[in-house]
Amino acid sequence: MNQEFLKACRREQTVFTPVWLMRQAGRYLPEYMKIRRNHSFLEMCRTPELAAEVTLQPVDILGVDAAILFADILLPLDGMGISLEFAKDEGPVIHNPVRSQKDVDNIRIIEAEEATPYVMETIRILRRELVNRVPLIGFSGAPFTLASYIIEGGGSKTYMNCKRMMYEAPAIWHALLSKVSEVILRYLKAQIAAGAQAVQVFDSWVGTLAPDDYREFVLPYSRYVMQGLKNEGVPVIHFANNAATLLEMVKEAGGDVIGLDWRLDLAEAWSRLGYDVAVQGNLEPLALFGPPAVIEKKVKSILAKAAKRPGHIFNLGHGIQKETEVENAKILIDAVHKFSRMSLEELQED
Amino acid sequence: MNQEFLKACRREQTVFTPVWLMRQAGRYLPEYMKIRRNHSFLEMCRTPELAAEVTLQPVDILGVDAAILFADILLPLDGMGISLEFAKDEGPVIHNPVRSQKDVDNIRIIEAEEATPYVMETIRILRRELVNRVPLIGFSGAPFTLASYIIEGGGSKTYMNCKRMMYEAPAIWHALLSKVSEVILRYLKAQIAAGAQAVQVFDSWVGTLAPDDYREFVLPYSRYVMQGLKNEGVPVIHFANNAATLLEMVKEAGGDVIGLDWRLDLAEAWSRLGYDVAVQGNLEPLALFGPPAVIEKKVKSILAKAAKRPGHIFNLGHGIQKETEVENAKILIDAVHKFSRMSLEELQED
Repeated sequence: MNQEFLKACRREQTVFTPVWLMRQAGRYLPEYMKIRRNHSFLEMCRTPELAAEVTLQPVDILGVDAAILFADILLPLDGMGISLEFAKDEGPVIHNPVRSQKDVDNIRIIEAEEATPYVMETIRILRRELVNRVPLIGFSGAPFTLASYIIEGGGSKTYMNCKRMMYEAPAIWHALLSKVSEVILRYLKAQIAAGAQAVQVFDSWVGTLAPDDYREFVLPYSRYVMQGLKNEGVPVIHFANNAATLLEMVKEAGGDVIGLDWRLDLAEAWSRLGYDVAVQGNLEPLALFGPPAVIEKKVKSILAKAAKRPGHIFNLGHGIQKETEVENAKILIDAVHKFSRMSLEELQED
Repeated sequence: MNQEFLKACRREQTVFTPVWLMRQAGRYLPEYMKIRRNHSFLEMCRTPELAAEVTLQPVDILGVDAAILFADILLPLDGMGISLEFAKDEGPVIHNPVRSQKDVDNIRIIEAEEATPYVMETIRILRRELVNRVPLIGFSGAPFTLASYIIEGGGSKTYMNCKRMMYEAPAIWHALLSKVSEVILRYLKAQIAAGAQAVQVFDSWVGTLAPDDYREFVLPYSRYVMQGLKNEGVPVIHFANNAATLLEMVKEAGGDVIGLDWRLDLAEAWSRLGYDVAVQGNLEPLALFGPPAVIEKKVKSILAKAAKRPGHIFNLGHGIQKETEVENAKILIDAVHKFSRMSLEELQED
């Protein structure tokens, strides 16, 4: 099996820099769209054969060094008693957002195998299919990000209801986050038990918070999840998006690998974090709209910033855009594999 | 006249920390809504008597230490030959977005007094009305932010067309940004000539860029504007939103005062910038949804981070939300005025 991804997570020397792409199983692939046309998004998530099939597509088509489970971060909501719908072109809609202590009290905590059996079944299928190929990454939303959907009732620009709850009713906030963290921890443990060989925790929207608020209202819960995964025997990737000013606290919360978005300079970010954690990232996703020369130049630049230190996993700094040409994604993967075999001197040329 | 704002811009000692709020002339004020009900947003911008009236409202109602011109960053587009509309609830729509070299060639550069005479007239009215009261701030969008609307045809989540142009057609990008910067510089010089006593340059959307792209595609143009204002005799505030990883380059581009958004820790940001520039900011705007005790605690905390250094202007870290209660905005202004008279030791208590 191609072990380069897992080796990099453990900060071991690799032959080349492993690479995968956030949202690599997705709408930019015609093979994905072919299935998507006949099934709703949630249907795909909840049908293990379909979810497994689209998970494998980028492994076959692009040659990435890890597969990531096809799923949605909101799948655990069902088991919590929160009803979720994907409205056409509008993203997720939650019809009973949580705003009061009573709402929080009503949230159920049940075992993930019971709440999301299809996710675990997808993982089991994938492990069989991936034998001798690449490792499988499981994932979940982080406590803040999951709570933000639950409170706002969907996506948000301002996170007004979240912040209102933090400032006006901190006891409700803390009660909710405790429950959400517990659900996430169980969900990830179940994924690992089912066969996930690494997990990524996505704090996609935490970049809306001031540092003092992150410390008070979020860090303890992210830490709870990270600490709870410590003895599960698989590497944990902690990706907090748009969190340049939270980076040290994200590391403090935990994770073997810290995901970096494209707004960060990789060299600077890694030096801030310290070299006792691995990093993942961080190409501007829209660089894939540029010509091959631009893609290759930017790949080289990021590899030079990583400076051949063990513990770098190449990725985009955010999910791949659905308008991306597959050919350009292939150019990226090939460029990472090729250039990461160069010496630092060669990388720094031109 | 209350000179505290201008003194702080010049990093001179002040009796208290001056404070104003981004979007202080806006929809959270019932007095504003009363006028808005009978006039479209653009109509208000283009009618000097109305624009002046709403500019004065927060000075009267809240007691802020500076007035900021009521206007929109897209007003200069008209004179450039780019047609702008505010669609109901959808924000600005530009029907002829600029995508090609020919589009760029068609952009006109005319004098701001001719393109936006109503803005200059508003400023002249305001200077008469504000005699012996508070200084008047003029403003403009920064080159990236203005160009982003022109290219995308409105707001954007991904800035796909901007980035596509940077990577695929850099010559067109540079030609466009050169023209946009020239328009901005002339617009701000005209505002100063009409009486603006300080100007703020808003780079609201630049936070979408990776640092290397900011350096290559944006910094030269922001610097062109900032350098061009150097001998105009008024302080320049440079506010780049969500730009934690660009902060040093924002300072490099120029400005007497660097605006900080709420994601930054003020103490850390000011230390990164160096104390040879003033700073403005940076309360989480949604803190105004909290109870008075939360607002006051956060004000104290920010004042403590500013550590009584000369050169701090208090502001929100982003525009005030339309759902904010006026009473809470007053509590904020009063808290800044009161607590900033405390010693650092008193501020750091509790």
